[in-house]
Amino acid sequence: MFTEAESDPVLDADTAKELETPLRTALLKAQYARLLDPRRALLIVAAGLDGAGKGATINLLNEWMDPRHIRTLAFGEPGPDEAKRPPLWRYWNALPPAGRIGIVFGSWYMPLMREAARKQPRTARMARHIEDVRRLEATLAANGVQVLKLWFHLSKDAQRTRTRRLLADPDTAWQVAPQDRKVHKRFDRLRSAGQEIIAATDLPHAPWVVIPSADERLRAVRTGQAVLRALSPRHAPRVASGAAGSPAAVRIADRLGRLDYAAHLDKDQYEQELLQWQARLARAVRGQAFSRRCLVLAFEGQDAAGKGGAIRRVTHALDARRYTITPISAPSSEELAHPYLWRFWRRVPAHGGIAIFDRSWYGRVLAERVEKITPPAHWRRAYEEINDFESQLAEAGAVLVKFWLAVSKDEQLRRFHEREKSPFKQFKITPEDWRNREKWDAYRQAANEMFARTDTRHAPWHVIPADDKRHARVEVLKTIVQALEAALQKEKT
Amino acid sequence: MFTEAESDPVLDADTAKELETPLRTALLKAQYARLLDPRRALLIVAAGLDGAGKGATINLLNEWMDPRHIRTLAFGEPGPDEAKRPPLWRYWNALPPAGRIGIVFGSWYMPLMREAARKQPRTARMARHIEDVRRLEATLAANGVQVLKLWFHLSKDAQRTRTRRLLADPDTAWQVAPQDRKVHKRFDRLRSAGQEIIAATDLPHAPWVVIPSADERLRAVRTGQAVLRALSPRHAPRVASGAAGSPAAVRIADRLGRLDYAAHLDKDQYEQELLQWQARLARAVRGQAFSRRCLVLAFEGQDAAGKGGAIRRVTHALDARRYTITPISAPSSEELAHPYLWRFWRRVPAHGGIAIFDRSWYGRVLAERVEKITPPAHWRRAYEEINDFESQLAEAGAVLVKFWLAVSKDEQLRRFHEREKSPFKQFKITPEDWRNREKWDAYRQAANEMFARTDTRHAPWHVIPADDKRHARVEVLKTIVQALEAALQKEKT
Repeated sequence: MFTEAESDPVLDADTAKELETPLRTALLKAQYARLLDPRRALLIVAAGLDGAGKGATINLLNEWMDPRHIRTLAFGEPGPDEAKRPPLWRYWNALPPAGRIGIVFGSWYMPLMREAARKQPRTARMARHIEDVRRLEATLAANGVQVLKLWFHLSKDAQRTRTRRLLADPDTAWQVAPQDRKVHKRFDRLRSAGQEIIAATDLPHAPWVVIPSADERLRAVRTGQAVLRALSPRHAPRVASGAAGSPAAVRIADRLGRLDYAAHLDKDQYEQELLQWQARLARAVRGQAFSRRCLVLAFEGQDAAGKGGAIRRVTHALDARRYTITPISAPSSEELAHPYLWRFWRRVPAHGGIAIFDRSWYGRVLAERVEKITPPAHWRRAYEEINDFESQLAEAGAVLVKFWLAVSKDEQLRRFHEREKSPFKQFKITPEDWRNREKWDAYRQAANEMFARTDTRHAPWHVIPADDKRHARVEVLKTIVQALEAALQKEKT
Repeated sequence: MFTEAESDPVLDADTAKELETPLRTALLKAQYARLLDPRRALLIVAAGLDGAGKGATINLLNEWMDPRHIRTLAFGEPGPDEAKRPPLWRYWNALPPAGRIGIVFGSWYMPLMREAARKQPRTARMARHIEDVRRLEATLAANGVQVLKLWFHLSKDAQRTRTRRLLADPDTAWQVAPQDRKVHKRFDRLRSAGQEIIAATDLPHAPWVVIPSADERLRAVRTGQAVLRALSPRHAPRVASGAAGSPAAVRIADRLGRLDYAAHLDKDQYEQELLQWQARLARAVRGQAFSRRCLVLAFEGQDAAGKGGAIRRVTHALDARRYTITPISAPSSEELAHPYLWRFWRRVPAHGGIAIFDRSWYGRVLAERVEKITPPAHWRRAYEEINDFESQLAEAGAVLVKFWLAVSKDEQLRRFHEREKSPFKQFKITPEDWRNREKWDAYRQAANEMFARTDTRHAPWHVIPADDKRHARVEVLKTIVQALEAALQKEKT
């Protein structure tokens, strides 16, 4: 794959000049056409050998196109905020909205590149990094973020010559970063690392393009051409079904049907237990062990199931500086211009933090499914994307607890009527709640399938009968405390 | 001001119950009315004695009102990201959008409170903190963020009794934070600190309300009533003219008229000088001293003055991970729902970072003034707000360099025609550019007044003749390098 690039091909000045004008015009036209596309962003990953002129070429793209709609996303070693979150968090956070272009330096290939360039790459780690990269790119592509990957390459001799030339002049020597000086010593290793990475991650929805980089003019033209192809409207590759296909068949149990809705707690016992569990929760998150973990709580359930009240009993035990509550309703226009999970990634807490979601990313497979807001292909794919998201959180130290507060159909009706009669609860009941109630069975079916497909070891579902609010609130607190204490216990040993 | 609160008044259960229903109904109604107001957010500052039940009361507000439109903004000691920026940065960042309510714990009163509670408060520091607070609140109020400040207070005896009661039971002892245990020892000092602070910062546009807090029921009702008053549409206090009034008279010189537009650099000299200054810039920002400073560059100038080209010559010397370029155009709906300076505050770099603005916060007194987008009272006030913003940046270590690239009217015409003829520069010329050109003199007048009012020692204007692009680019680089080297020199000594 590097044969052409390592022959260090050259473009003469006249040909370059002839090519440049139509290329620039076409790039601008394509960029403006893309701006009007409400569904697709373009991410350009700049990778390859150091000292091959990546930076200069990206500067050129900014000169050739309208730089107001291009964002350079450059990442180095993770900063203090980043180190306390899953490794992909910073990339999710920085995704450009639909219509725009992002250019990524220091991309998600860095850990893979580092491993592949070791004297003896560790096979298991390589495989895991490759799997992470493939998943990320499949999810991005399926959610409207097109990925184009450029590998800047040149021969060993050309690299040596270029570095020497720059170092010879004190006014250009700064362009050679310390690590670049060593690159030509490690050329063979980086070359074979590149080969392996490209072979493993060159996919129709996220292709690699090798850019011959010894000659500035050719490098510029080839880069422009690759970007132009990616922006072309005909170039809209589908994600291979293997990468993000339909979920496997599972046995769907009726977990909502099997509950004991009569579960009940009397007032004295409630007050005593509530206080006890709150005290234990307060102690758990104040301990040293929690500073290396975080807590993510998702609350789902039918309307009027008592999510808000349960959340307040939890936060009562928490320092307001530690937690955020995110109520999830219809996405904003900014959120719609990003992949579905983007708005949840942005709210991932750092170590020591607590994120509480009043409704959550499961809206995709609940309301969006039942209300037919999202086509089946998308919500079906979401199960796998959500499991992947949650497993990344768990790996980075998050304790994930997901609740479904379950009211019976009769109790819901009673609460709806109560709300209508109360002068300060009226706001909690809308025509939409009544419409949702008519779809009771469809929601039940969606919830049961969701439990079956997303009940994982690291992020289990807790389905809690909530006809008795006191019982539900104590169960919620108890479940959180037990999950947290078990996780923190591991942290200590 | 604490007489009533220290008499520890009590509300009996029956009266409280009678008051609660109409109060909750009215609060909800007022909250929903406010949601429709596209111009006003409400910030509630929760302050006062520790252990007076601030947290519990705020929980109650969330229960009484619709919590989906209330955000709790809780701040502790500055985190790593916050410590590298101006102290007010985190508050600006967290401002709720118009229509919404934010409740602030650990507000901008913390440094003032800490100083006032010293055995011997330092008068000069007190005065400075008070001035900072007054400026911030005046700017917020004038820009659509209403501020209500609650001081939770009770008598020394009541505080002691409450703390003892909580500590006696292991299940409630966690509610008493370590610092709360000491509070009653420091009661007298905190009391007089509160007195001083309230006296100095109780203003019509940001009033203090003392909440008697010994009795839970009364505390709740009084808090609800204070919030209700603040939400009332009749309650729309004007900012006192002294706080953010019209700018003082200044002599406005015609700096744009006095330039030498013939300044010129030939190609060889240009290439040599460019390289030299780029190398010096690269060295300066790579040094250790820069890790305690940051660089903020603002580029203004007529259309086609060459801002983009000059910026690219600067970034050519920089590591892409260090800088961001923010092109400023019409604000988004989210930005319009916040105070004018909010979108610039969000982009303030941390130490070691570089923020480049292609057009800037000066849009307020340039395009928004000339195009009559903003009423005169607002853009006139902006000079002072901008000076205050920039002085906060400078105090936190930012090196601020502001450029006006000045083309002559003839040269602009030549460039417009050139752009129209070029297939890949057409996108840079729009009917709006021609319309702006017709208002050449109005823009000139606005620019000259802007120079006169915002040319400060810590953030000077550099007006650079730009008819010759080469000359302008070298001047820009040279100016940045000189400002940076001077600042870093100080850092070393």
